[in-house]
Amino acid sequence: MNRYSISPKKEKFQLPDQKRTEQEIQDIHRKCEEAKRKGKEIVIIQGLGFVGAVMAAVVADSEVDGRLPYFVIGFNRPSISSFWKIPIINKGLCPFKAKDPEIKKIFHRTVTDRENLIATWVPEVFSDADILIVDINLDVVKPEFGNAKKSVVEIQKFSEAIIEIGNRIDPACLVLIETTVPPGTVEHVVQPLLEKCFIRRGIDIVKNPPLIAHSYERVMPGERYIQSIKNIWRTYSATSELAKKMTKKLLANIIDTHQHPLFELPNPTSSELAKILENSYRAMNIAFIYEWTLFAEDIGINLFEIVDSIKVRRGTHDNMMYPGFGVGGYCLTKDPFLAEWASNHFFKRDQHLNFSIEAININDLMPRHTFDLLREGMNFDITGKKIAVLGASYRKDIDDTRNSPTITLYDDITNAQGIPYLHDPYSTMIEQRRDILIHSNLDRVLEQADAIIFVVDHQQYLRLSIRKMMLKISKNACILDAFNVLSDPKIKLLKKHGFRVLGVGKGHIKDL
Amino acid sequence: MNRYSISPKKEKFQLPDQKRTEQEIQDIHRKCEEAKRKGKEIVIIQGLGFVGAVMAAVVADSEVDGRLPYFVIGFNRPSISSFWKIPIINKGLCPFKAKDPEIKKIFHRTVTDRENLIATWVPEVFSDADILIVDINLDVVKPEFGNAKKSVVEIQKFSEAIIEIGNRIDPACLVLIETTVPPGTVEHVVQPLLEKCFIRRGIDIVKNPPLIAHSYERVMPGERYIQSIKNIWRTYSATSELAKKMTKKLLANIIDTHQHPLFELPNPTSSELAKILENSYRAMNIAFIYEWTLFAEDIGINLFEIVDSIKVRRGTHDNMMYPGFGVGGYCLTKDPFLAEWASNHFFKRDQHLNFSIEAININDLMPRHTFDLLREGMNFDITGKKIAVLGASYRKDIDDTRNSPTITLYDDITNAQGIPYLHDPYSTMIEQRRDILIHSNLDRVLEQADAIIFVVDHQQYLRLSIRKMMLKISKNACILDAFNVLSDPKIKLLKKHGFRVLGVGKGHIKDL
Repeated sequence: MNRYSISPKKEKFQLPDQKRTEQEIQDIHRKCEEAKRKGKEIVIIQGLGFVGAVMAAVVADSEVDGRLPYFVIGFNRPSISSFWKIPIINKGLCPFKAKDPEIKKIFHRTVTDRENLIATWVPEVFSDADILIVDINLDVVKPEFGNAKKSVVEIQKFSEAIIEIGNRIDPACLVLIETTVPPGTVEHVVQPLLEKCFIRRGIDIVKNPPLIAHSYERVMPGERYIQSIKNIWRTYSATSELAKKMTKKLLANIIDTHQHPLFELPNPTSSELAKILENSYRAMNIAFIYEWTLFAEDIGINLFEIVDSIKVRRGTHDNMMYPGFGVGGYCLTKDPFLAEWASNHFFKRDQHLNFSIEAININDLMPRHTFDLLREGMNFDITGKKIAVLGASYRKDIDDTRNSPTITLYDDITNAQGIPYLHDPYSTMIEQRRDILIHSNLDRVLEQADAIIFVVDHQQYLRLSIRKMMLKISKNACILDAFNVLSDPKIKLLKKHGFRVLGVGKGHIKDL
Repeated sequence: MNRYSISPKKEKFQLPDQKRTEQEIQDIHRKCEEAKRKGKEIVIIQGLGFVGAVMAAVVADSEVDGRLPYFVIGFNRPSISSFWKIPIINKGLCPFKAKDPEIKKIFHRTVTDRENLIATWVPEVFSDADILIVDINLDVVKPEFGNAKKSVVEIQKFSEAIIEIGNRIDPACLVLIETTVPPGTVEHVVQPLLEKCFIRRGIDIVKNPPLIAHSYERVMPGERYIQSIKNIWRTYSATSELAKKMTKKLLANIIDTHQHPLFELPNPTSSELAKILENSYRAMNIAFIYEWTLFAEDIGINLFEIVDSIKVRRGTHDNMMYPGFGVGGYCLTKDPFLAEWASNHFFKRDQHLNFSIEAININDLMPRHTFDLLREGMNFDITGKKIAVLGASYRKDIDDTRNSPTITLYDDITNAQGIPYLHDPYSTMIEQRRDILIHSNLDRVLEQADAIIFVVDHQQYLRLSIRKMMLKISKNACILDAFNVLSDPKIKLLKKHGFRVLGVGKGHIKDL
């Protein structure tokens, strides 16, 4: 039985059989030996997602005193959903679409030119590692929409990946966790598991305690993808002074620490907590503006210019967010809950992080407000109506659709018997919802649309000619600006031509 | 019957009788006439509180092309609690203690040298005003501690002050509201009231509609008191183009608008909302860190260094707050509620601003956590114990005690049969709680103290010699750092000498 892994570009890759795997184990080990002879350290990245794949390229690309100190191996399990990333990387390509022009260059340079980066599916290679960087996901499942407290942390899968490491690595190998984890995970999960594995393998853990570090990335997919790894502050900590020293050396080799000095925290729990707090702060900031958005709309006020007038106060008020459509992505939609989970599971506290958890709920429910505006704009008659939904990714000009708030709106429209036509210039599919079709032809989506909802501020939408758009859509169409895509003059023009326009945070539209 | 108004420095001022008042009416009117002959505009500031008094001095101090365009009159009602401010200002002194050395100079310069600023208690002078700036308070009373939703907005008192204006001003006078008000107050309260007064006085409000503006200050008592009025952005709006133009001219004359350009918003409600949103954001940011403070303490983590490591991200994360003792002052403790009140009363909405209201509650309850730490540190035995509480004002190095969180802690200690000794280097009393004694002699307060709680990071406390302190306090004293006053080396020293130390947000103390 042949099984295939299919890339977003529809390339088909056969999953490896046992023979090919055995060959791979030999080949990859030989390459490691060769690299070691050249004085290189072997760095393995476990998990080739949005962070791991690019992190692998950045580590492979780092130069110290004119030489390349690392031979990097990207590892991913040969699953149907992910195996394709391995042959793609080995062709010298990035497995993700990205606006950053550096992305293309760095994969070509490290894989093809310098032969310093390869990807593989065989965990046997872990035994060759000097440094193993964990970039796998630790997923949170939300069984109840809008009730984040009921979430489930898939710690079991994460633990299995750690055991896979513990069974193979040399005790001198540094294990650097980059995964966002509940605070306390290194101390309460990773360290005990690695120690158990070491003991089973006859390793004296008093002499050779596992070397474990935590340091979190601040990757931001988009135009500055590579820079968001290399040119940014890094916080780290580790389980011992030796592990801290090794981590510091690695980070100093890949990050511009002159501009962005490293922060060393006293223990891994502090570093883990820092990441969660950082993302929770952002989630809370977004949730905060939500109820003011509803207020501004109801009283006929443009909240955008008000936020502008406040954000000038740098250092105290410039982190304030604008009204928007909702929150997606892998981090803000779950990270506050990881602290709540740690609080219960690791530390047996009976106090809760209610305020931060509530931020997740508010943000999850936000796209429902856009749906309410749609219903209002359509006079509560959506049945059989063609609704153009513009934007599938959760952020401007990227193709990342993980936990996109568009999914909520899409389902709300469908449940109300409307017919959503989803468009995105970057994304071709939503991995977690393969049933949702994404169209790439904007004209086709706009044709005869009864409503148009802008949910992401992609460049293509910002540049859209309103005059041309008006020719394509239904004469009575409702236009809904959920992400400040339309300027006031554009809205005026639409209104002049008889279109009904509504906007999130734009209570002033009725007076335009 | 003689009645007196007593200043914080215990100076006694007799309240004016009718004869003195009649004389004042004549004198002040004559001074206005004189100023007008010199080509000056008459600016009256209604309300000589923390904002009004200093605003009056700043307006009087403004120079345009080498001349002084304004003759300024500070107005305050002749109440027992506030009348003293009038003779104090007329002596060329600031009615408030302030660290800003400019404060002393500006009152001397404007009152004594230039004779450009006087204070009075007679509202008859309103009829001379070209510009009337409203800086009275609009108070919010909270009948239930920790339940901000039950708050009451004293709109009646505010309305009476507006009527006092409407009964006297020339229709061409600009009324500039600087008071923090529920969004919609100019439109729903000030404008109808002034129109009603004008009509009663036979003024044609179609030809002469009242000229009403709203613009909010961002005064911060402390070392940069004056600069916090002059060198900061200003947002404004008004009820007509003429009123906007007049407001813009006034603000441009007193503010450095080259460095801090003005923001004009379309209507007063937007400007009113901006102020409330700005303060609610701050209140929410403080509330957010609270539950993380408890978490960090419980798991043995120092939250301060974690926040430091996150705040480096300018523009997205640098508004994050540090753990602290609580929130006081006149604004953050009530402003989010003003929006909730407006939402109900002016706009009849049935949606609530729950997240923002909850921030008030969390902040109000924060000092109770310090009390919990005290109980823990004292092994739950506070009865009859002498507790030194260091800090009465709500912010570093100022004498402002309005709604200070110290009051909550003080009452909690008293209710638990402990004996609080409160010290502050700046404040001599808490206006709303004259029963609470503030000591100025720190040594006396520390003598034989069974517990010492640092609740404000006044310079005096930061500079305190721990060695000297240890000689004065009880051998088994508990030391509680509620505002990051003690450095780690100081805490180590205290622990070395057998003292029990706890700190808000400082879970790492047990490992020091």
